[in-house]
Amino acid sequence: MALVVQKFGGTSVGDIDKIRHVASLARKCKEVGNDVVVVVSAMAGETNKLVDLCTTMMERPDPREYDVVVSTGEQVTIGLLAMALKTMGVEAISLLGSQIAIHTDDVYTKARIQKIDIEKIMKHLKEDRIVIVPGFQGIDTLGNITTLGRGGSDTSAVAVAAALKADACEIYTDVEGIYTTDPNMVVDARKIDRISYDEILEMASQGAKVLQIRSVEFAKKYNVPLHVRSTFTEAEGTWVTKEDKGMEKVVVSGVTCDKNEAKVSILRVPDKPGIAARIFGSIAEANINVDMIIQNISIDGFTDMTFTVPRIDLAQAMDIVNEVCEEIGAKDVVTEDKVAKVAVIGTGMRSHSGVASKMFKALSDEGINIMMISTSEIKVSCVVEKKYAELAVRVLHEAFDLGTETV
Amino acid sequence: MALVVQKFGGTSVGDIDKIRHVASLARKCKEVGNDVVVVVSAMAGETNKLVDLCTTMMERPDPREYDVVVSTGEQVTIGLLAMALKTMGVEAISLLGSQIAIHTDDVYTKARIQKIDIEKIMKHLKEDRIVIVPGFQGIDTLGNITTLGRGGSDTSAVAVAAALKADACEIYTDVEGIYTTDPNMVVDARKIDRISYDEILEMASQGAKVLQIRSVEFAKKYNVPLHVRSTFTEAEGTWVTKEDKGMEKVVVSGVTCDKNEAKVSILRVPDKPGIAARIFGSIAEANINVDMIIQNISIDGFTDMTFTVPRIDLAQAMDIVNEVCEEIGAKDVVTEDKVAKVAVIGTGMRSHSGVASKMFKALSDEGINIMMISTSEIKVSCVVEKKYAELAVRVLHEAFDLGTETV
Repeated sequence: MALVVQKFGGTSVGDIDKIRHVASLARKCKEVGNDVVVVVSAMAGETNKLVDLCTTMMERPDPREYDVVVSTGEQVTIGLLAMALKTMGVEAISLLGSQIAIHTDDVYTKARIQKIDIEKIMKHLKEDRIVIVPGFQGIDTLGNITTLGRGGSDTSAVAVAAALKADACEIYTDVEGIYTTDPNMVVDARKIDRISYDEILEMASQGAKVLQIRSVEFAKKYNVPLHVRSTFTEAEGTWVTKEDKGMEKVVVSGVTCDKNEAKVSILRVPDKPGIAARIFGSIAEANINVDMIIQNISIDGFTDMTFTVPRIDLAQAMDIVNEVCEEIGAKDVVTEDKVAKVAVIGTGMRSHSGVASKMFKALSDEGINIMMISTSEIKVSCVVEKKYAELAVRVLHEAFDLGTETV
Repeated sequence: MALVVQKFGGTSVGDIDKIRHVASLARKCKEVGNDVVVVVSAMAGETNKLVDLCTTMMERPDPREYDVVVSTGEQVTIGLLAMALKTMGVEAISLLGSQIAIHTDDVYTKARIQKIDIEKIMKHLKEDRIVIVPGFQGIDTLGNITTLGRGGSDTSAVAVAAALKADACEIYTDVEGIYTTDPNMVVDARKIDRISYDEILEMASQGAKVLQIRSVEFAKKYNVPLHVRSTFTEAEGTWVTKEDKGMEKVVVSGVTCDKNEAKVSILRVPDKPGIAARIFGSIAEANINVDMIIQNISIDGFTDMTFTVPRIDLAQAMDIVNEVCEEIGAKDVVTEDKVAKVAVIGTGMRSHSGVASKMFKALSDEGINIMMISTSEIKVSCVVEKKYAELAVRVLHEAFDLGTETV
């Protein structure tokens, strides 16, 4: 008998019938002998509606009261799901973040989970109930309601699974698992059976919408096996686990594409200590995520510096960069937002060489110019012109034999 | 400096602008030097929507989970109201039923308040904040969420006022106070300045939609002065307090009319001990409220018995009555649902005689036949044909000099 945590997002619990379907999945899991804890989001659209109320009332909503309001979305779902199970004759009980309790820090609207008490959950599991837990919400040390920020339900599920030492944390989605690349771009994209936390983290940071980064970090830290699978089929999905021997045999696990970045170049920056810290310190303070940074060799005591930021943050980043440039005496700043970032990711790169060169060759064979390159132990990432994005992905997917036909 | 509890119902907080208006009323009350606690309901329509979700999911919703779901309506309002006050630069904080805590018994969906901790509320009042409390909700001894049943927000407000020993509990409505009778029936109905708990209780039980009976009982028990007033004007409303000398001078305070009752007559009931208990015991067990009961004198060991029940409960009451009648050997049961109950109410009746006879004469002068009569210390109530209801109210309102022109 295993202990399974199941997590269902907003679209999976979007209406009464969908909640009934979720209940049937939980019941099935229980009937084969598992202890089952279900973590759910707010019904699709509900959180947006609550956020709209808040922002209509107050342009920058008071964070404490914002959390009081938006946390109600999940509360509605847990009650309805418990009812759905009861109509099926399955014993179930909902527990709020404050009742469990899910302890967080006191950073309203983006709190971090610190500790989850398991006594109440374990008691109800022992009494043969399915326990239903709201994602996204917790309480701080003073008992104030906190929320974890968008997508926090994945993190809630993994944290609950970690606290309970669950055998698996099932993340239900509308696709059958994690694919070698976006199936909308490459028709023979293949579902991955097994992948490591690190690869998923790289994929997510390269723009693949698979799992919340925070939740994967949590799963990695506490070694919680994740099972990403479909709400609508019974097929096995993708297991995300710690790296094992078998994984290294696969050199490249997937190809990602991120079309939401923009490139910023600062020209003729005085090349002296502290300049990079000055630029990127200011950007980091504004909570803007810089991905790639490239600095050319210095000529005459000046250098050029290029980096990427999410396109939605470009305007804000430019305000900061322009100010800093004036201060440090750089010559000019140019931006380019018609770029895309494609990457190949795989744990096997650690023990196989030649991935980068194979990638560069595949792209150049198609006449795709590489504007920036960045690598990690298990990733090679290139910035290319946006119009080549899909082509680049298809070419790389084929070059590394990732398609269904080749397996 | 006084401590004032203000209560606003669903229509008063029905949208963002209305919540802003409520905030301005709370601020005004605070600015003149009062400590202010605001108790609010869910936004108009929200509770119905939540109830619909529950009943769609489960024909008879699990009561514990029902309370988890429907209590979210008030939670949204308290957060939004706190924000509204903050946008005005007024310090405010919302506290949930579980945070305060408002302790209730564990009868989900119709819990009764047992105790309210005041420490947290007092702390925030001392720190110069307006404290915002959700109506309708509480927690049981195990920390489960409970709700007080429909209209429970009035009770929450009065209970909070009682616990805090507030100087006044203001109940905001869409009318200017409590009237001598329904202004829709009688154009010169007059707003009452001051009335006793007992009179209000009689009015409410006679069908006047003024205040929740439970909340008035609570106010009477703890001697909380209620001030029923309008959300839309600054005029003084109606004070509901304990009886004082002045009140006795007014013989009749108001005339009520209830068109939602039905009359049931059981014919030729064997007149022996225990029969009435048998009939009304069964009806009470079904939670049906019997108002008037009349038993005629016995002839040949048989009697006729007539009583009234709310018309919506008539079908259920008939099922019970038919079964009991067969068992006890009564001859027949006849019902009449085209009836209305009109009543005159006034504390002054205790010390003034002749109210009943004046009432009967006024009705008979208009040719209105009285079908049943019931009296209490401060009320005379008559059942008449429904078509005469409005006429009866106008006649009685005039007979007892209640109109604006006569004062």
